[in-house]
Amino acid sequence: MLSQTTEYALRAMCYLAYMKEGLIATGEIAENTKVPSNYLAKVLQQLAKADLVIGRRGVGGGYRIARPAPEITLLDVINSIDPISPITACPLGLVEHKGVLCPLHRKLDEAARTMIGVFDGISLSDVLGELGSVRPLCNAEMSKKIHLTLDKSGS
Amino acid sequence: MLSQTTEYALRAMCYLAYMKEGLIATGEIAENTKVPSNYLAKVLQQLAKADLVIGRRGVGGGYRIARPAPEITLLDVINSIDPISPITACPLGLVEHKGVLCPLHRKLDEAARTMIGVFDGISLSDVLGELGSVRPLCNAEMSKKIHLTLDKSGS
Repeated sequence: MLSQTTEYALRAMCYLAYMKEGLIATGEIAENTKVPSNYLAKVLQQLAKADLVIGRRGVGGGYRIARPAPEITLLDVINSIDPISPITACPLGLVEHKGVLCPLHRKLDEAARTMIGVFDGISLSDVLGELGSVRPLCNAEMSKKIHLTLDKSGS
Repeated sequence: MLSQTTEYALRAMCYLAYMKEGLIATGEIAENTKVPSNYLAKVLQQLAKADLVIGRRGVGGGYRIARPAPEITLLDVINSIDPISPITACPLGLVEHKGVLCPLHRKLDEAARTMIGVFDGISLSDVLGELGSVRPLCNAEMSKKIHLTLDKSGS
């Protein structure tokens, strides 16, 4: 349902949310999210355009998350790549349907609004911080790295 | 949320469901669904591959619906173009996540399953036959044509 690109964007945002501060090189993000580096570079540019990450080019460059994880919803990330949009007018532009959607487009609109509600209700920190479950992206090595980051920031 | 191609496929299926019998030329379907003809030709090939329509090439060729509209769900049509799939294993292939999804992928899985449930519960005839509302694809001229088809088939 969500595109591969969107799923990659969610992974990248999770990684940058773990890392919190400092610019992270695209290569490091690619390695930990298992996203091909060239593909990821384009995803990160889209995330930067949507003001979800802040990037700097060149030597020592990279990306960091633009806001704290509790303030970014899954919908923010999804909408920066392939927006989920309600249907507010007949996609065929039929004048007879002005102001009233047909049952096909009404059902598609309802489905879109349901998904908007679901993803708008989940922040990045909701999926990163759930107790008693495996964490996104985390193999054993990554778990250790995250604990170090969390210890450093005192959270 | 659904791709443009999927939305076009749903329109094409609605048109063929109205027409019920006889092969309909791609040009006629394109005109009534307001989908570019070349684009539609590819969509129809995908629908044929999924056994939702039956086509014949050449002079006098075209497409007809493969089964009655009550037997085709919106999910059947969606899945013939861009399938909505539950997430049954870690997309990163992490061994630590074997048998248990992380909260990110669990949320995405739940959302996918919600949409599968919604679209599997709606047949083409559900969206075509709703009383007291505008019908999919129908401007005034198309409404007349459909009434003729319905009258002819006695429904």
